[in-house]
Amino acid sequence: MKSIKIGLIGFGTIGTGVIKTLQTQRELLTARTGMSLELVKIADLDITTSRGVEVAPSMLTTNVNDILENPEIDIVIELIGGYEPAKTFILRALRNGKHVVTANKALLALHGKEIFETAMQHHVDVGFEASVGGGIPIIRSMREGLVANNFSEIYGILNGTTNFILTEMTEKGEDYHKVLQHAKELGYAEADPTFDVEGIDATHKIIILTYLAFGQYVTMDQVFTEGISQLHPIDIKLAGELGYKVKLLAISRRIDDRIEVRVHPTMLHAQHLLAKVDGSFNAVYAVGDIVDSTMSYGRGAGMMPTASAVLSDIVDIARGINSGVANRVPLVYPLSASEHALTIQPRNRFLARYYLRFTVLDRPGVLSSIAGVLSDHKISIASVIQKEVHPVDSVPLVMLTYEAYEHDMQEAIQKIEKLDGVTAKTVVIRALL
Amino acid sequence: MKSIKIGLIGFGTIGTGVIKTLQTQRELLTARTGMSLELVKIADLDITTSRGVEVAPSMLTTNVNDILENPEIDIVIELIGGYEPAKTFILRALRNGKHVVTANKALLALHGKEIFETAMQHHVDVGFEASVGGGIPIIRSMREGLVANNFSEIYGILNGTTNFILTEMTEKGEDYHKVLQHAKELGYAEADPTFDVEGIDATHKIIILTYLAFGQYVTMDQVFTEGISQLHPIDIKLAGELGYKVKLLAISRRIDDRIEVRVHPTMLHAQHLLAKVDGSFNAVYAVGDIVDSTMSYGRGAGMMPTASAVLSDIVDIARGINSGVANRVPLVYPLSASEHALTIQPRNRFLARYYLRFTVLDRPGVLSSIAGVLSDHKISIASVIQKEVHPVDSVPLVMLTYEAYEHDMQEAIQKIEKLDGVTAKTVVIRALL
Repeated sequence: MKSIKIGLIGFGTIGTGVIKTLQTQRELLTARTGMSLELVKIADLDITTSRGVEVAPSMLTTNVNDILENPEIDIVIELIGGYEPAKTFILRALRNGKHVVTANKALLALHGKEIFETAMQHHVDVGFEASVGGGIPIIRSMREGLVANNFSEIYGILNGTTNFILTEMTEKGEDYHKVLQHAKELGYAEADPTFDVEGIDATHKIIILTYLAFGQYVTMDQVFTEGISQLHPIDIKLAGELGYKVKLLAISRRIDDRIEVRVHPTMLHAQHLLAKVDGSFNAVYAVGDIVDSTMSYGRGAGMMPTASAVLSDIVDIARGINSGVANRVPLVYPLSASEHALTIQPRNRFLARYYLRFTVLDRPGVLSSIAGVLSDHKISIASVIQKEVHPVDSVPLVMLTYEAYEHDMQEAIQKIEKLDGVTAKTVVIRALL
Repeated sequence: MKSIKIGLIGFGTIGTGVIKTLQTQRELLTARTGMSLELVKIADLDITTSRGVEVAPSMLTTNVNDILENPEIDIVIELIGGYEPAKTFILRALRNGKHVVTANKALLALHGKEIFETAMQHHVDVGFEASVGGGIPIIRSMREGLVANNFSEIYGILNGTTNFILTEMTEKGEDYHKVLQHAKELGYAEADPTFDVEGIDATHKIIILTYLAFGQYVTMDQVFTEGISQLHPIDIKLAGELGYKVKLLAISRRIDDRIEVRVHPTMLHAQHLLAKVDGSFNAVYAVGDIVDSTMSYGRGAGMMPTASAVLSDIVDIARGINSGVANRVPLVYPLSASEHALTIQPRNRFLARYYLRFTVLDRPGVLSSIAGVLSDHKISIASVIQKEVHPVDSVPLVMLTYEAYEHDMQEAIQKIEKLDGVTAKTVVIRALL
């Protein structure tokens, strides 16, 4: 029986999950692949702390060269995350003719093109199923299952931490900071949660999906990114009264020859399937011209679900090694003859419906002046909520608009905030069209 | 550029969709595969009626041998459906060294084992992504994306016709026969809808998924199948009042060394993601020991979504031909050393919660005698709905039980129906645990 030799760089949570899976599913994986998948080396700076999984001490090394320069190793799993030294390690592995499996979305979002091109030059593969959507096989679905489709849009809940926080804020009406603390205690949020809560992680992931859907790498600064740290429970509650749920959505759309990529808290109609994706689950909605709408749902993070995705890549690459084939599915998105670079839709041209919460003095004329400014900017109002609040002077005035351009909306808001009787910054949440 | 030659047997709706897709996506498919996918022959008994798609007359034939015996053809697409002559055609194609792509779930459910074994003997592939869930890439996800998982259960909405009918009955409160008529007019139901509405189509599909999940082919008579033709809008409405939605679910579960496979109208808690899958959409829930819960959603039928799945198989096989590899993913489910045949859970041993609608005379003592019989059979009642109804004598009495065995439930119902004051057959709907 053929044996595939694997080296693992990064003995953290996901790495531990991969080792566990290789151990518990050994018999299953051997049966399904007809090969023996053998982990031979694990490199980490810390090789003394126990991770609750048994490994032969001889397997452990602090020297990454024991993997990168090891002629015996076929597949390198990179699970250290971050840009460097992950990038250097991956490129060295590829240049040494080793296949790479990685969950590193930050790296692929910024340097995916170089990594994929290097892999194809050296006739080796890069598996990155674990980089988006954890255990959800969305990468494979887009590259293979839906291969006959031109995508028009792909959007979803791509970050489990923020979805957990928003779900708790929605269900319990609790404050962001309190829920974040709770999420940290449960292990759903990291000590420094910035990448998650500010939408950066979701931005990395939507950049990868945008590449798969449209063949183009957009840069971080071409994505409009807004996180959830400024959200107040009152807005989630009022959105609920209007029939909407608030989710952190990552959205990538093709509109003619433009692509529009954005990540922000988004109001979804309560009947939308994504509105029902709660807790730490993720889901990706992809719309193709042949298949119409599809959605994939599952655990977007966590030791074992992510390990499931890593293993699917290992099996795929092992099958390729066994039959002497690499790049069966091309890593560099093959543009067709008539395809060409798309331009980036500027934020000003975004179309959305808008939830607006103004803070106003409870006196006559304020509602009418705000409505007047909106109307001047061709923005129509779909619903209004104003409630009696005692005994304060300032009250919340909530409006849901019909479709409007971001440019018009920002101008209108600037003018409204200068109106007499408007006492605070306006809260804005965009609604999915 | 390598050219892959394709023969299509069956110029019906799906066949037309496949031809359209090959035409409109020609450039895209060439770019993504680096090959030219060329349809060279179309066999059908009727080659004169226009299908609204342009094909060269020389491509059409009424003689299937022009495809099966054509040495030029690499891939045969079988889209005539049914058992014969589809089975004969497929086996002949495989024996002639041709790869086969099929959407024929009825055939695969009954003869999949023979077809898959024949394919592997002749080192050719069978693509069957289109046989379950239309455009949803569920077959690929189970065989590849989730390859590292032992599945514990897989269940879903696998028939678009019945889901459309149930959605209409739920939303409009309309009668089954009226909605069925409407579905026929819209093309969502066939002239003879038996296979769909009696759950036979869903049974075929769950047999295929059971094979993929557990490596075992169950027979039609080993699946408990109940359709939707006996459902009344009143039960859908009352289930709604209890917080449930009624869906035709196909369920396959592994419980220790037994598998339980069943298709029946099922009450799903309104918060369950599957409860939100409406209209002609399908969705499959798969639970693996590593990945946890996953769900895939999309159009379960229709010309273009099914063509999307057929094309994904063609591309996959073309990539295999190009690299000289067949059976990269084994068609015959590879059992691991410790796996062995599972026994079939008999219906008597099914566990479920039960919705029961009794028809009783509106007089004292009836509720208490029914509750007594249930209690004698160790069945506990979770909720009761009894409403005043005038001016009839018989009234509906609805109960939702806690978990109970089918055996106990059937015995209890038999006794209850003999009670004084119980005037009609009991309506039973099982709820998902």
